[in-house]
Amino acid sequence: MNIREATREDFKQIWPIFREIAAAGETYAYPRDISEEQALTLWIDAPRKTYVFEVDGQIQGTYFIKTNQAGPGDHVCNCGYMVSSSARGRGLATAMCEHSQDAARALGYKAMQFNFVASSNEGAVRLWNQLGFATVGRLPKAFNHPSKGLVDALVMYKWLER
Amino acid sequence: MNIREATREDFKQIWPIFREIAAAGETYAYPRDISEEQALTLWIDAPRKTYVFEVDGQIQGTYFIKTNQAGPGDHVCNCGYMVSSSARGRGLATAMCEHSQDAARALGYKAMQFNFVASSNEGAVRLWNQLGFATVGRLPKAFNHPSKGLVDALVMYKWLER
Repeated sequence: MNIREATREDFKQIWPIFREIAAAGETYAYPRDISEEQALTLWIDAPRKTYVFEVDGQIQGTYFIKTNQAGPGDHVCNCGYMVSSSARGRGLATAMCEHSQDAARALGYKAMQFNFVASSNEGAVRLWNQLGFATVGRLPKAFNHPSKGLVDALVMYKWLER
Repeated sequence: MNIREATREDFKQIWPIFREIAAAGETYAYPRDISEEQALTLWIDAPRKTYVFEVDGQIQGTYFIKTNQAGPGDHVCNCGYMVSSSARGRGLATAMCEHSQDAARALGYKAMQFNFVASSNEGAVRLWNQLGFATVGRLPKAFNHPSKGLVDALVMYKWLER
């Protein structure tokens, strides 16, 4: 497995992946013109852990894991995953999502929640379904897609305890 | 209407209300032992606006409004409301929720979302329903209630545009 914990140094390679995905505005709830500094804070500093997926020594994927709600909600984590456009369709998202579930269990989390999956992102919804996530919520017109306009966003959830 | 925008000075009166509600651990996703500094940041500094409800010159209720998701989600806001234990049952939550919907429209938001309503908080669920919020999601066992154990949390949502 080519997945390891990220360092702050790794952000040099993460940033081009992050910037392209944020600028597209089709999947993530980040400002499309987010700055490198803001992205570093959100992806590396704020989460509990951040990982990278390397292919031939180059970072091609990355994910974070963080506590989704504090206090009475702190047994549920949240993750976000990014794959470089040149490495899509090779199973990196699947590998990272499976890795993240093990990492979450090791950190003591009992469930994992995705708060804001664009319903138009059909590939992602299908993948999370295959990996055991249920759609537990639908937010009407909560996602402003750059070409499709206001589409629903989904809340997806998986209980991790075995 | 006794609702006005809060100042940082007001936090002296907000903190006893906040501390009691957080310590109970029955309704809000805050650490039960949250510090005054953390609470000030979360309630006053981080939100877009914070308001207080005064009764005879004393703050008895407070709410914040903030953007729930950035970028493609930034047309949906999130609010949180607190009422002092000595002022419950007098309609303060209703008045603040109605006020917050007008404030949200004035700020340009198109919808309001509550991310994490404990299903055991039946009074709140009933009130939000009466005020036009639909339950659009149910997070299984996502809320760790101090006496009831793991209960579901609800996602509630209202489209504000007329």
